[in-house]
Amino acid sequence: MNIIYCIDLLGTMVFAISGAMAANRSGIDIFGATFTGFVTAIGGGSLRDVFLNLRPIWVDDSNYLVAILIGVIISIIANRQLYRLARTLTFFDALGIGFFCVVGVQKSLTYESSQTAAVILGVFSAVMGGVIRDTLMNETPLIFRKEIYATACLFGAIMYMILGSWGVDTAINAFVSTLTVSAIRLVAVKYELSLPVIGG
Amino acid sequence: MNIIYCIDLLGTMVFAISGAMAANRSGIDIFGATFTGFVTAIGGGSLRDVFLNLRPIWVDDSNYLVAILIGVIISIIANRQLYRLARTLTFFDALGIGFFCVVGVQKSLTYESSQTAAVILGVFSAVMGGVIRDTLMNETPLIFRKEIYATACLFGAIMYMILGSWGVDTAINAFVSTLTVSAIRLVAVKYELSLPVIGG
Amino acid sequence: MNIIYCIDLLGTMVFAISGAMAANRSGIDIFGATFTGFVTAIGGGSLRDVFLNLRPIWVDDSNYLVAILIGVIISIIANRQLYRLARTLTFFDALGIGFFCVVGVQKSLTYESSQTAAVILGVFSAVMGGVIRDTLMNETPLIFRKEIYATACLFGAIMYMILGSWGVDTAINAFVSTLTVSAIRLVAVKYELSLPVIGG
Repeated sequence: MNIIYCIDLLGTMVFAISGAMAANRSGIDIFGATFTGFVTAIGGGSLRDVFLNLRPIWVDDSNYLVAILIGVIISIIANRQLYRLARTLTFFDALGIGFFCVVGVQKSLTYESSQTAAVILGVFSAVMGGVIRDTLMNETPLIFRKEIYATACLFGAIMYMILGSWGVDTAINAFVSTLTVSAIRLVAVKYELSLPVIGG
Repeated sequence: MNIIYCIDLLGTMVFAISGAMAANRSGIDIFGATFTGFVTAIGGGSLRDVFLNLRPIWVDDSNYLVAILIGVIISIIANRQLYRLARTLTFFDALGIGFFCVVGVQKSLTYESSQTAAVILGVFSAVMGGVIRDTLMNETPLIFRKEIYATACLFGAIMYMILGSWGVDTAINAFVSTLTVSAIRLVAVKYELSLPVIGG
Repeated sequence: MNIIYCIDLLGTMVFAISGAMAANRSGIDIFGATFTGFVTAIGGGSLRDVFLNLRPIWVDDSNYLVAILIGVIISIIANRQLYRLARTLTFFDALGIGFFCVVGVQKSLTYESSQTAAVILGVFSAVMGGVIRDTLMNETPLIFRKEIYATACLFGAIMYMILGSWGVDTAINAFVSTLTVSAIRLVAVKYELSLPVIGG
């Protein structure tokens, strides 16, 4: 449990960095960058928890807010270095969405959502922070424009459900499903894979 | 109750089609279309349920998600035919917002909101899915640009409250109020009626 | 308590005016202005309450909806006069965000959020209505573009927490913290103070 918790905090921090950097790119002030980092980091999980009729975890556990603050500070201090690390960030982001997706599916099941809803809520946990970030920045959300992103989460969430129904050990299942999401995402970025468009 | 449930599923599917078609028009990929169909279909009702401190119905009942998936698949397979059916879609959409509005008012009253809040929540149920769809597509929401839309819902919701307070039978009231919303909407589309603008 | 309640209603009305006037500026129809006034007025507080797993206050207490309706009607009837009163509106808005911020912090603490989360939720209460308004109007949110706004709330929220932990009387603390937010905001407007931008 302790490792999961640490990874969750780390993922939250990575998402905060990605949000704050998007704001920095748009020439938004320090507070706006903090705000954007914050909503990017907590948006997806908060929406999931609200739909499960729970209080989002950061309302009760300050460590998440500290992780976000550290992420924002990193994005401000190391702004130029981070751009050079873009590939590293893509790597961590791919790990992050995989992890958030699987944690989201599992939490939804724990609170007795239907299995289909758990898949949806898992994908929401991973991508909605970014959707809110892009909407605030007044851009068409990234998940609508770029290579396979949310689709990787959808695939991983369904895989987690199926392996679970086959009786695969939860820890192994979580590990494999997270890595599957990350791998699909990284392959899609590398080869610029994208889904077909309808009625184009 | 069974008929209401079927209409609710049908309305959800129609909203999913409208959302997915909006995404198709914008040249968004298959997953984006699915995502947009999904949020259009569940957005309004979910917001109402969250404000009533309930879990949205689709979290527990997968049939809604199946209805949405069918709607999205229809919008992908029958994309070109659906454009020719635009008038038919407007008709179903007008029925859909009437129905969702009345169901929203009734559900809010059942969970003991104030009467004024029930009116607001009824309108939200009908229109917020479309507002979220348009915001995601980075467009000024349709309800701000076009012929009478949400106003028809507002009228129907108030009518439903008034008829209810006069002791009109709930089933008859729901039927009449739904048709009133739909009729106002269809007349507004046909004659391109719109509300005045202030300070233009 | 009665005075707090009246100020809360008044603040809600001022926010409704500000939302409806933004819609009027954008050439949106009467219903759209009402809708925008409504979401501006209730957006921040509703989000806070949803995160605290509570029903937003307006769902149960119609007086808030009446206050919003009055605000919208004022913005329609007195549209031209209000523009000449822009400075007065800025003054009331500055008072309003200070008040909403402090009330938001206190309510979060009452419902046992962590202290850090209470600060965030206080800021959210004050600014998220405006963020939603700007997102609906398809504009980059004001808090990203203009002089110190949300930062004033952040400062006041932290101050309220610190004074509280020092044992300062709640009423005095609320009064001083509200005025601090308002004063920072008004000074920032007068001297066009803004925060630095990163990586510009």
